[in-house]
Order: sequence, then structure tokens, then C-alpha cells
Amino acid sequence: MAQATIGNSEFDRDTAVVRRAPGIYDAHLSAGWTIIQAVNGGYLLALMGRALGDALPHPDPFSVTAHYLTASVPGPAVIRTEVVRTGRTMSTGTARLIQFAEDGTEIERLRVLAAYGDLGALPDDVRTTAKPPALPPYEHCLGAEAAPGGRPAISGSTAITERLALRLDPATAGWAVGAPSGKGEMRAWFGLADGREADPLSLLLTVDALPPTAFDLGLSGWVPTVELTAHIRHRPAPGPLRVAVTTRNLAGGFLEEDAEVWDSQDRLVAQSRQLARTVLHG
Amino acid sequence: MAQATIGNSEFDRDTAVVRRAPGIYDAHLSAGWTIIQAVNGGYLLALMGRALGDALPHPDPFSVTAHYLTASVPGPAVIRTEVVRTGRTMSTGTARLIQFAEDGTEIERLRVLAAYGDLGALPDDVRTTAKPPALPPYEHCLGAEAAPGGRPAISGSTAITERLALRLDPATAGWAVGAPSGKGEMRAWFGLADGREADPLSLLLTVDALPPTAFDLGLSGWVPTVELTAHIRHRPAPGPLRVAVTTRNLAGGFLEEDAEVWDSQDRLVAQSRQLARTVLHG
Repeated sequence: MAQATIGNSEFDRDTAVVRRAPGIYDAHLSAGWTIIQAVNGGYLLALMGRALGDALPHPDPFSVTAHYLTASVPGPAVIRTEVVRTGRTMSTGTARLIQFAEDGTEIERLRVLAAYGDLGALPDDVRTTAKPPALPPYEHCLGAEAAPGGRPAISGSTAITERLALRLDPATAGWAVGAPSGKGEMRAWFGLADGREADPLSLLLTVDALPPTAFDLGLSGWVPTVELTAHIRHRPAPGPLRVAVTTRNLAGGFLEEDAEVWDSQDRLVAQSRQLARTVLHG
Repeated sequence: MAQATIGNSEFDRDTAVVRRAPGIYDAHLSAGWTIIQAVNGGYLLALMGRALGDALPHPDPFSVTAHYLTASVPGPAVIRTEVVRTGRTMSTGTARLIQFAEDGTEIERLRVLAAYGDLGALPDDVRTTAKPPALPPYEHCLGAEAAPGGRPAISGSTAITERLALRLDPATAGWAVGAPSGKGEMRAWFGLADGREADPLSLLLTVDALPPTAFDLGLSGWVPTVELTAHIRHRPAPGPLRVAVTTRNLAGGFLEEDAEVWDSQDRLVAQSRQLARTVLHG
């Protein structure tokens, strides 16, 4: 298989949108980014980000908030965007992801509110006190093939695992063999399986690609996202990314997941936080 | 002065909204919550939260995202809400804050996207690994009256300081005397000056009420918020709140501010993150 590139990869094809009218885009939710039957939230975020990047005058997502309203299903969809404000250095827009019931009724899946800018136009100052996560070398981390019994349990179970080069820190993978750490942490090396390098758009996928931190807290079952906000802070350098996700407050049936994404140059390229619900097993 | 109560306080009067038509509210932005000439972002968030609490079938803000589009000014305003989705346990809506130019042109100030629910209906489970901030006792922290030269420099400069009972940890107040710690932290005791207790709505004010962490990094000048997302996680118990705000990534002219609000029962009642720009002095 030839090395995929930005613009010519499975991720790019599956997040493609076709402008049907000003601000309105046709899309197709691929079955290739599902976990069990759910379409991955980060994949949907990237798809919406693609449409907004076309609808707004600035190229890069700076802050993207998505509310997950109903469960998306693979198949056709429409994205309707609205330009809220256009400024010199930043612009703001909304996007709605719509699918259709058998009788033609519109069902809204996602509502997005986002600010776009130009990462290439930012000054070079860096004063980051955060440190990259301490991850074991890539080859000592665990891929899906390392899961017990050959089941690809590490990153959920299904199609998306084939598209991600995800290598979990063994210290945060104990849940896969019934020994969660109880700390609420997930850390992993991240890449796309076809070798496509990261860009601001794929970072929207990356922030929601690891297994739920709830697994490391000993919970099982579904952890649906209510709301996710991602800040893209810098264009990622080529090479594998490091992702650290932490939960510090699981209470009242809700938890936050804070994600950081670091590139190969030790730049903090993305920060995200989501509010998710814990849905008990069975 | 009689003790103010929830529903009968300056905060409640200044965030009051009057329903003019279904989903449309008249409001008045009070000059009492300004810093220099800017209307405080947390006050605006609470005002929008008030309108959405009326427009949506659930009472409490769970996740509220605001994009600050243009600078609000004290005076009349209109809030237009839209119900995006209504579910059994949660509902989702948007709100727009509109002011008017002299010629009558509409100017949008804020765009909000929010999920509401019922905090009182959540289960009692608490598994919080985060710890409350280590703050010196209230009487050892610094109020506005402690500012050098009698200037109320601690919490900015103006009207809002009279309405807040804000006591800054001396360890994060060095910037007021030209000796910032360089860590990007702010910690404070927080209350409303008239004694009104906290509730989910006032927590939306609390998350954006401390001086900018940029001051503790040695920057001066304006730090306008691009986007702020607040998660309200529990009804606050009576008594003073503790707030800790941290910045870990100041780069490319942008920074995040992460805030935590803890109540007198050591419950983490709110978490927020904002993306702000640094606008250099002069």
C-alpha cells in the first residue's frame, strides 16, 4: 500500500463534503469509523470541521464545540452551516449535521459552534508549562493485536481500530485484562494506519480516539459524549502523536475527559474537554 | 443592608430577563459588572444562562459554551433563543445576545450553545480524584482594599469589584506589586458581596471572575475571551467558594484558562475552560 498523504487518504475521503449550495454540504458517514455500532465522535467532529473550513473565510479550527444530540448512523447526511461573524483574524460559524428518517423527517445529530483562524499567521511565542506525557517507547505500547484472546479490545472493538495506529501505554491498559488502575487515565501513541500525517483537521479525530477513561476507572458500558470542545493550538509536525486523557471528576453519572495531544516536536498541538454520561452496563 | 438571597439580590436583578415573545427576552446589561469599560464575560454568561433556563424544559445548565463576538456595552439588549432538542433528562438550546447600533442595526455580542438538565435528579455517586486548591484562610487572602496605593488593582479596577467578595491567595497576587510568580495560576475565595449564596447560575459568573492568569505570567493588557465552556456539576452548598484557575499553554498569542470551583462541602461544583487572546499593552 502506498503511503497515504494529506488530501489523499481514507480519512480525507471519509470526511469529504460536497457543496450543494452556499453553506450546505452533502456528506456520507462512513462505516469505517464505528465502535460497535456508534459512529466515532471525533470522526464526526472532523467531518463538521471540514465543512466549516469551507464555509468560513479562515482555514483552521481554533475552537470547536459539538453537542451530540442523537446517535449518527453510517450513510448519507447533510451539513448546514451558518456564518455568525467574520473578522480580520478570526471567524465564527455554526454547523448542523442532519440525517433523514425513512419517512424523510430530518433528524439533527450534531450541533457545532466554532471559531476559525489561520494557525500559520500566529506569532512564534511558546511559554508552555505543561509537559508531554511520559509514554513508554512506541514498541513497548500495546496495539489492538495485543489484546487478550486476539480480540481487538484495546480500542473498543471494530472498524475504527483498523484505521488507527493506536498504541496504548500498558500502565493505562490494565482494564483490558480486568485490572484497571482506578486513576482515570489513558495514554497512547496515535497515528493513522495508512500513514497519513496529522493536520489540524485530523486532530479533531485524535482528541476523541482513545478508549474511555471510564474503563480505567473500572466502569464498563457506554460513555456517550454530551459535549466536546477542542482547541487546536498549533499545526502538528510530522511523526507520531502522543495523547493523554484524564478524568478527575466522575460524579452524578457524568464525567469530564480532558485530552492533550503532543506532536513529535514536543508542541502541545491540541487540548480538549468533553462532558460524558456513564451508562451502566446491562 | 439586609442579607441578599437567591432571587432577591443585585446579581438576580442584573441578570433578569423579560420574555417578550416565545424564546425572545429583553435584558439590560448592567454597568455594575464592568472591568474598565468591558462587561464581564461571566456576568454575560449568567444572563444568557437565565434566558436559556426559561426557554428550555430543564432548569440547570450542565454545559454552556459562549463565543464572545463583539464587545458588549451596558444598556438594553435582546436575547433570542432556539430549542435545538428536548429529551427526557436533557435539552439543548442556543442563545444569541443582540445589541443595537445607533441606526438600529443589530450587532451580535455572544453566541451560546448549551445543554441543560436537572442537577437535583442526578444520582449521588462521587468519585472525584481532583483535590480542592490549597488556599490560605480567608482572612489571610487579599481583597481589593489590600491593593497597593489604595487602588483596587486586585480584581481589575472597577464596578465589579464592589459586587464580589473576592480574596486572592497572596501566592498568586504578586503581579499586583510587580512580582508575578510566572506559574500562570490564580486562586481565590469567592462570594457575592451582598451575601447572596451561590447557585448553578451564579457559578457561570464565578468561572470568569478572577483576574487573568496572564497577569501571573507577567503579561499586562487585555486578555479577551474567544470561547468559554463551563460545566456545572453539582448544586453548590452555602458558604464561600474556592476557585483555582490555571494556564498551561500560552503560545502563538493564545492561552487557555482552566477554572475549578469548589464549594464548602469540598465538592467540585464547576469546571470551565476558556480560550483567550493576549493583546499586548500599548
